[in-house]
Amino acid sequence: MMVGSLMRRMVVPCRKKAPLRHRISFTTTTHDSHASQILMSPSLVSLDLPDVWAPNSSHFQVPSPGGNFSNEQTAAVINGLMIADEIRPRIASEVRRMQDSIGEVPGLAVILVGERRDSQTYVRNKIIACEEVGIVSTVTELPDDCTEDELLNAVASFNVDPSVHGILVQLPLPQHLDVGKISDVLSLEKDVDGFHPVNIGNLAMRGREPLFISCTPKGCIELLIRSGIEIMGKKAVVIGRSNIVGLPASLLLQRHHATVSVVHAFTKNPAQITREADILITAVGMPNLVRGNWLKPGVVVVDVGTNPIEDASCECGYRLMGDVCFEEAVKVASAITPVPGGVGPMTIAMLLSNTLDAAKRAHSFT
Amino acid sequence: MMVGSLMRRMVVPCRKKAPLRHRISFTTTTHDSHASQILMSPSLVSLDLPDVWAPNSSHFQVPSPGGNFSNEQTAAVINGLMIADEIRPRIASEVRRMQDSIGEVPGLAVILVGERRDSQTYVRNKIIACEEVGIVSTVTELPDDCTEDELLNAVASFNVDPSVHGILVQLPLPQHLDVGKISDVLSLEKDVDGFHPVNIGNLAMRGREPLFISCTPKGCIELLIRSGIEIMGKKAVVIGRSNIVGLPASLLLQRHHATVSVVHAFTKNPAQITREADILITAVGMPNLVRGNWLKPGVVVVDVGTNPIEDASCECGYRLMGDVCFEEAVKVASAITPVPGGVGPMTIAMLLSNTLDAAKRAHSFT
Repeated sequence: MMVGSLMRRMVVPCRKKAPLRHRISFTTTTHDSHASQILMSPSLVSLDLPDVWAPNSSHFQVPSPGGNFSNEQTAAVINGLMIADEIRPRIASEVRRMQDSIGEVPGLAVILVGERRDSQTYVRNKIIACEEVGIVSTVTELPDDCTEDELLNAVASFNVDPSVHGILVQLPLPQHLDVGKISDVLSLEKDVDGFHPVNIGNLAMRGREPLFISCTPKGCIELLIRSGIEIMGKKAVVIGRSNIVGLPASLLLQRHHATVSVVHAFTKNPAQITREADILITAVGMPNLVRGNWLKPGVVVVDVGTNPIEDASCECGYRLMGDVCFEEAVKVASAITPVPGGVGPMTIAMLLSNTLDAAKRAHSFT
Repeated sequence: MMVGSLMRRMVVPCRKKAPLRHRISFTTTTHDSHASQILMSPSLVSLDLPDVWAPNSSHFQVPSPGGNFSNEQTAAVINGLMIADEIRPRIASEVRRMQDSIGEVPGLAVILVGERRDSQTYVRNKIIACEEVGIVSTVTELPDDCTEDELLNAVASFNVDPSVHGILVQLPLPQHLDVGKISDVLSLEKDVDGFHPVNIGNLAMRGREPLFISCTPKGCIELLIRSGIEIMGKKAVVIGRSNIVGLPASLLLQRHHATVSVVHAFTKNPAQITREADILITAVGMPNLVRGNWLKPGVVVVDVGTNPIEDASCECGYRLMGDVCFEEAVKVASAITPVPGGVGPMTIAMLLSNTLDAAKRAHSFT
């Protein structure tokens, strides 16, 4: 061991001041003065900077026409609509079997706060999907300016309602409402969105099983498996680290033994990392963030982004685009999910599956 | 949008059978037949394969002498002993202040199952460290063949003991005891090891703060911060994904805005990934796994590995080695933690800090 002889070159503990960014964090935690005297590590919440992607940075330059890629389509398009269409009848069949056997049907309570048009659309689609498979659903609409207590009371009432097996609070919430508090109050056994920290912790930890896996990441993995795409041993890159998609997607890929890297807004040169990916999942909310030159030939691309883009030629005035430049990616990837028609239908199918699971668990029905 | 025109090349959902590895998983979950009819995703626990590293694979070849690296030491050695020596008196001072103000001192209960010599040594070191800072500690020793109920009862008794603020079950446990059940029973407010799934979930999720961060990862980050090493925006690679070190280390680095990749035993060509790292944390338990040619010049290396290697020339018959080949790494890295004297002392210091925090919280002492 050379440790002894090397001890002359030591890092002297940094007594005077921490690097700039940590000093910034300290200023936000001065109320916790005693703790910060002992450790220099800041509180984690004080580190929570928003992931703002810079669309005009050099990372987002349009590649030169042609580039290194052929003009031919190389990618198979993974049809999420078709795969979800395969899954839903099986859920409906299980719902019928449950009703015939024990006279109970799964119940889903959806809480919608405010009048965001996209949220209204998502909720409507979920309700229709419930109806189609025989899940009883209710929607509670609260005004945009409702108090936190009103929202928490709504959740609490469904927690104790035995006809409700799953509770879903449609996100995003208005700024004044704390999504963390909602998760804390929402019954773990009814957390069909899988956002409760216990479910996230159990998703992350080997040897453990969450009661529910968040619907969108679960849908992504189901898409990969049903498309015959191997995950184990593959390099997977997740772009985005939101609590509801990016984080659980990265944890789930790791449970499937992928080697996972997470790219976010503080990543320098993200394309360098994404170009190593065998499997790429994007969940950022930036149309065309991922260009063809971000991709390794043969990569499998799962595009969670669902970005409305104004388009007067469409009946509703907008069209949906993913985070990935589809026209370029389809010439590089081996498989890709389209937007719309890729991950979206799977998210809803997984919500139905989670609600069915919740009801089966509540009634010990197997 | 070209989606429409591309729909001719579809991935046909895989109806017949899943890829081999998933089929293997299915055979382990056949009791859950109804669920597997609906989804092809296996249960996560059925995926939990042991991370067995292959020491004789090509990844572990000794690089040619000289290689591309100079023979000069480039790395500063990060002195964990010295940094822990800075932290402990501050904890002692806070313990005194607490005693003087409210007449209470922090209490730590350690449970040791069996007679593993390494575990006995670790527990002894923790007890001595507690004494030095004024934390009252107790050790409960249970026989190697104790029942799960005996262990759970011991934990439960400390859960309700108001003089105990932190409970630590020394790992590893004998095979017949389920560490998951222990975490589930152990009071969240006394989980000073930070292994409870709620603490892991809150560590992972932005906007949330765990009550405790696992001691070893917390010590690694504190070492980096006190050595003036920037984390934000850096590429960090964690080798190993154990619930107690690798996983929380990767989550913590991500909360600090590093771009994190996790390498494990199923990673193909791990050296290719580690060579991209600005910060490398290893927690595998394989001496000399990481050679000089696994490293980018200038990388900061934090070596959590503490592997006893037989050595007749040492008084105790063995010496400790890290996961990193120190002699090679010190010629490539810009900074490196030695083994022993790097992360180890920081783990204990963080345990003291967590126990102090637990006591302060229990007594609302600020």
